[in-house]
Amino acid sequence: MTGQSLGPVEPWAVRETELQVSRLGQYESVFALANGHVGWRGNLDEGEPHGTPGSYLNGMYEQRPMPPAEPAYGNPESSETMINVTNGKIIRLLVDDEPFDIRYGTLRSHERVLDLRAGVLDREAEWVSPTGSTVRVRSRRLVSFTQRAIAAIRYEIEPITERARVVVQSELVANEELPQETGDPRAAGAVNSPLVHEADEARADSAILMHRTRLSRLRLAVAMDHQVQCPGQVRHHVESRHDLARLTLSTVLQPGERLAMVKFVAHGWSQARSWPALYDQVEGALATAALAGWEGLLAEQREYLDRFWDRAGIEVDGDDEVQQAVRFALFHVLQASARAEGRPIPAKGLTGTGYDGNAFWDTEIFVMPVLVNTVPEAAAAALRWRHGTLDLARQRARELGLAGAAFPWRTISGRECSGYWPAGTAAFHINAGIAESAAAYAGVAADEEFEAAEGLDLLVETARLWRSLGHYDAAGGFRIDGVTGPDEYSAIADNNVYTNLMAQQNLRDAARAVHRHPGRAAALRANEQEAAGWLAAAQAMVIPFDERLGVHPQAEGFTDHEEWDFAATAQQDYPLLLHFPYFDLYRKQVVKQADLVLAMQFRPDCFTAEQMARNFAYYERRTVRDSSLSACSQAIVAAEVGHLDLAYDYVGEAVLMDWDDLRHDTSNGLHIAALGGAWMALVWGLGGLRRQGDQLRFAPRLPARLERLAFTVALRGRRLRVEATRLAARYLLMNGGEQVEIIHHGDRVVLLPGEPVSLPIPPVDAGPAPVQPPGRAPVPRR
Amino acid sequence: MTGQSLGPVEPWAVRETELQVSRLGQYESVFALANGHVGWRGNLDEGEPHGTPGSYLNGMYEQRPMPPAEPAYGNPESSETMINVTNGKIIRLLVDDEPFDIRYGTLRSHERVLDLRAGVLDREAEWVSPTGSTVRVRSRRLVSFTQRAIAAIRYEIEPITERARVVVQSELVANEELPQETGDPRAAGAVNSPLVHEADEARADSAILMHRTRLSRLRLAVAMDHQVQCPGQVRHHVESRHDLARLTLSTVLQPGERLAMVKFVAHGWSQARSWPALYDQVEGALATAALAGWEGLLAEQREYLDRFWDRAGIEVDGDDEVQQAVRFALFHVLQASARAEGRPIPAKGLTGTGYDGNAFWDTEIFVMPVLVNTVPEAAAAALRWRHGTLDLARQRARELGLAGAAFPWRTISGRECSGYWPAGTAAFHINAGIAESAAAYAGVAADEEFEAAEGLDLLVETARLWRSLGHYDAAGGFRIDGVTGPDEYSAIADNNVYTNLMAQQNLRDAARAVHRHPGRAAALRANEQEAAGWLAAAQAMVIPFDERLGVHPQAEGFTDHEEWDFAATAQQDYPLLLHFPYFDLYRKQVVKQADLVLAMQFRPDCFTAEQMARNFAYYERRTVRDSSLSACSQAIVAAEVGHLDLAYDYVGEAVLMDWDDLRHDTSNGLHIAALGGAWMALVWGLGGLRRQGDQLRFAPRLPARLERLAFTVALRGRRLRVEATRLAARYLLMNGGEQVEIIHHGDRVVLLPGEPVSLPIPPVDAGPAPVQPPGRAPVPRR
Repeated sequence: MTGQSLGPVEPWAVRETELQVSRLGQYESVFALANGHVGWRGNLDEGEPHGTPGSYLNGMYEQRPMPPAEPAYGNPESSETMINVTNGKIIRLLVDDEPFDIRYGTLRSHERVLDLRAGVLDREAEWVSPTGSTVRVRSRRLVSFTQRAIAAIRYEIEPITERARVVVQSELVANEELPQETGDPRAAGAVNSPLVHEADEARADSAILMHRTRLSRLRLAVAMDHQVQCPGQVRHHVESRHDLARLTLSTVLQPGERLAMVKFVAHGWSQARSWPALYDQVEGALATAALAGWEGLLAEQREYLDRFWDRAGIEVDGDDEVQQAVRFALFHVLQASARAEGRPIPAKGLTGTGYDGNAFWDTEIFVMPVLVNTVPEAAAAALRWRHGTLDLARQRARELGLAGAAFPWRTISGRECSGYWPAGTAAFHINAGIAESAAAYAGVAADEEFEAAEGLDLLVETARLWRSLGHYDAAGGFRIDGVTGPDEYSAIADNNVYTNLMAQQNLRDAARAVHRHPGRAAALRANEQEAAGWLAAAQAMVIPFDERLGVHPQAEGFTDHEEWDFAATAQQDYPLLLHFPYFDLYRKQVVKQADLVLAMQFRPDCFTAEQMARNFAYYERRTVRDSSLSACSQAIVAAEVGHLDLAYDYVGEAVLMDWDDLRHDTSNGLHIAALGGAWMALVWGLGGLRRQGDQLRFAPRLPARLERLAFTVALRGRRLRVEATRLAARYLLMNGGEQVEIIHHGDRVVLLPGEPVSLPIPPVDAGPAPVQPPGRAPVPRR
Repeated sequence: MTGQSLGPVEPWAVRETELQVSRLGQYESVFALANGHVGWRGNLDEGEPHGTPGSYLNGMYEQRPMPPAEPAYGNPESSETMINVTNGKIIRLLVDDEPFDIRYGTLRSHERVLDLRAGVLDREAEWVSPTGSTVRVRSRRLVSFTQRAIAAIRYEIEPITERARVVVQSELVANEELPQETGDPRAAGAVNSPLVHEADEARADSAILMHRTRLSRLRLAVAMDHQVQCPGQVRHHVESRHDLARLTLSTVLQPGERLAMVKFVAHGWSQARSWPALYDQVEGALATAALAGWEGLLAEQREYLDRFWDRAGIEVDGDDEVQQAVRFALFHVLQASARAEGRPIPAKGLTGTGYDGNAFWDTEIFVMPVLVNTVPEAAAAALRWRHGTLDLARQRARELGLAGAAFPWRTISGRECSGYWPAGTAAFHINAGIAESAAAYAGVAADEEFEAAEGLDLLVETARLWRSLGHYDAAGGFRIDGVTGPDEYSAIADNNVYTNLMAQQNLRDAARAVHRHPGRAAALRANEQEAAGWLAAAQAMVIPFDERLGVHPQAEGFTDHEEWDFAATAQQDYPLLLHFPYFDLYRKQVVKQADLVLAMQFRPDCFTAEQMARNFAYYERRTVRDSSLSACSQAIVAAEVGHLDLAYDYVGEAVLMDWDDLRHDTSNGLHIAALGGAWMALVWGLGGLRRQGDQLRFAPRLPARLERLAFTVALRGRRLRVEATRLAARYLLMNGGEQVEIIHHGDRVVLLPGEPVSLPIPPVDAGPAPVQPPGRAPVPRR
């Protein structure tokens, strides 16, 4: 698994120094700007060439009918797919009547830089037109973290060698033509022309287009306004039509003269609001942006990111590439979630249409642990989004004959959108993931208001789901049969260990929540008696164990299944799902992604050290990592069992997933969960962070490659700084207040505010590292 | 489960004495005429009103794209659906310019009779037109068993009270408008206007329409010719267009005068043959039919059926309704298969478009046992059809990563057409069903030519499939994991007992075939060494047993699953698949249809008497019979364990499935497998017939209701007549030749040709009968 690496190593930026048309798609994802509400792919200002043009609004989707091959009760009849909304990024340029298009003429120089602290994407290009005019184009683009609806561009054009007639066309384009779908099921289907015109208007320097989606009936408005600076006279024309609005500026520039334009673009959508209300909302946002002005937006952006890096900063001494990549990863996790506010965090963020822009369990299991520690308000918002879909999840549970709430496997609106239930609805573990996330957030952020309200609701309704989904067998064991665990190369199995252990935690956390908040619980008709039933089920939970092999089967019967014939599997047969039928994958011992290993990541308390080591070695040998969600978990458990260099190899894979385009699909959007997982791989893995009841435990240990790892985490509303070297760890409780007890390599340690504590790191010898299937070892980073 | 019963009880006919528009669909299926190649639903001559117009040619299908909700490797991209071909049945009538339509005017009398010995459908109606003219219409229709391409109608019109101007329009109609699809997944989708015009021609009394299907590119030709008798002058006009050909006859008839017309309709289709070749073929068939003439066709039909009833006759003394219904059942089994010759026997025969006209495992497991004993040449043809698809099945096995051949779960052409693989491709047991059928046919018919050729190929390639599908576990057991057994309320389970026992038999039969025919085996590169591997796998086959309960789980883990909450299930919630998601059904102990019970039916040698009784009682309590394929197996095993009255209740259900429209879907076509199953329920069930190696065993026992049961079966090319009363059984080897050994209630008995042997039937006391889920007991017939 190797792809093409991004530009030079530097601490706070991603730089592209040469434009390769074949890599446009990858860079569009890498250079995507987003704030969790608006997302702009890193398309060139002039719109083409492109990999995929992309402008997204979180929650703005179109329904896509799923005509069933063989209909069955309870299968959804349509799915939801994120659509390409009206594109406000486009600024076309004509130089002496030649369109600025890097496919023609000569591109003398090209550079794009994503600045991770400023939160802007810069571009500078020198281009010689086919007729010989040389111009320099500079643009800077941002999607504002502080003004949720706003994106803005400063665009500048300057002739270099001779006088040039220039025309700048700044546009809004709806229903852009999109590239054809590929055969890869994981890529999203492009929905063609999803927008139906409602209104358009142009006046002075501004214009607006309003549309509505055909089936989902969502209303969309995108508006633009401009500020122009130019030494000479500028001819100016603005117009609008159904799917196009355009401001045209024409002027003549001498060498050294510059036409500069700032374009503010405001976005809005609504399911409920009327035409005039949405019109006003978007125009209002535009006015606010103009009031702040370009410089104001830049300053706000920098200030927002300074606060973010203050909390999310992580120092990786000894590996500059990983240092850079993990900042890139955190930046994109932020971009996916910062201002989502009541909307999901999709698997690809707002960087591309992979997985149809749907959100999955990734959010809670791989992204939330980062947000809880770095952007807790975004973590809370993400949980409130889930909570907002609780009624839909309750309905879905009823439809499935279950109690409580059954959250969808994939969705935008909250409705189940999975067309293949064995790897969709049957993956009930997503419900435990949501519960885990709610409990973790409430504990770490000490957000009692949330805990007593949304948190309680989520815990209670998911606990009810588990209680109704499982049943007691003749021996008194509580079984959960016929479900699908995280590993998508198995399905519909009995007593999946991950599912059962996560359900067990879910039942216990819910019981505790009911005990703590009896009043709100009563409103849900939950009480101590019901909670006692949950605790009993948790206590009786069946956890299969294979005595013969001394390992846990990931689900009942797994270790009796046939071994996958790795020797007969060529490297080009990966990912296996594109070359083998599910039927074949399901019945054999081949693992797409951490499953039992994920159980050990989240519930290390349930395994002895020996079991942990044996299990890890057993599943390493059978795990092919055809999912981007695996490397981080393997890093975490490798570190837990003492294989630190292997853990670090997996850190590298997680953090470089999109950086190196390891899966050749970064053009469909970034792997947000893998990027979040990269942080987890470092902090949970090398740092040994885990939630243990209300306490945090750490077990830092560095691989040979690293000299120092430093990060901060949230701890009941305060921040704890952790610095680890090869020999010792230093803990500093940064804010005032009471003392706090943590666990360091198994020992309880009391931390007083402002008083650092240094503790030695016990040595470990885990023996020889486990092996992976042939050709599936991670790239060494030693 | 009760529907609406058919007409009066009589031994050799089905009679409709009153026309109910609401039951048109049921009667169209019941009165369908077919010969396995051409099928005509029992539509009224004048075409409407109708339930579903239907004219079918076996193998004539259109492809239907299956756009996947979530594509996956190995899923078929299109399915095949039997189409309504050019309709040659239509004869419209105008009486004094009023169209004869029973929805208008007054239908003074109506009778239709399906004559099971003559093989014709008669109709007689007296109708008063809205303007007061009274006419009598008589028609007789046949689909010829002896002339495969031919159907014919004799149509007669006679005014009763006064002189009438009559116009008779005899038509061919292509691309008829079809009723809308329902929401029931088991009903077929109508493919609208599947036929593209290629040619049409009309001359003298004949006409032809030629079309081609749009996607499957199959060529179709239907032609008609007429012979007219009339006392007066007849004006005559023939014409043809793209989708219509018409002969128009006009005359004036006095009361008592009759216009009589014989219409011959010839059918042909081909994937390969040219336009002129098919044209000639159909015109040639028409010429042959005209040569035989109407009376000739009738005589041939009667003669063919006399031979059939001679072999298939079964006498059920004590229950005239079952006597009538089982003859009806046998007649339709014959109609589905008689002249299929190289084409499948679809689940609904050629009586309707249910299940898209696809063939399933039903053919081999529920229909072939009847054919082997009654129409062995049709049994051989059905197996030759499977054999003809062997290359496609080999390709499919390769696609699935398996050796040998993997036959499709549902198909018309031989390609896999299942859109839901867990209940399609994963049901590998169909391959063992085909092997069982091939071995049974070869043994019973003593067809050594077949055994050494097609039979060997089928056995070897299916044995190879099993050998590659299963694997040896650590304890040396041979496991078959992740497959779906017959019960469609479970899927993707390990070591399904039915599958494993049938695979075991398949492996053994294949090894024996290789041993017997080493030459032909060598051509398949099969030898004793490979066969030894099959025998070893068969010997090591894992058969799970639940020691705690003392029963066999139908697959591993089944008896640990949650019990279905029958108390909370209303009768209108059946069939469960329309009201509960598969997810819920799969993980609970609820059984759609005989699975472990079917294993006991086919492999009684693998169960002790106590296991058989305990297993039967266990699964009776959990089997809901939402499939029409279940009652006959439950009858057979109920009889085996001595519950004869319960067995007979199930006989009643199987044989009356369509008679009483028990499932309210007879209008979509008859349940051919249930009709075949009815014969099996009597002969395998009450007669106790089983194949035991090359021997036949019998264990006849009658329920209280019956006085006598008599039937004949094939025995190595000869016929054996079996007559059972409550006390004794009488065996008579009817043809000359060597003596034969059979088994009667466990004892070996030698039969000499022409010398009947009477043997007492040992008494049985099976104790109280097992119970079924609430409301799911069969209707008592005691």
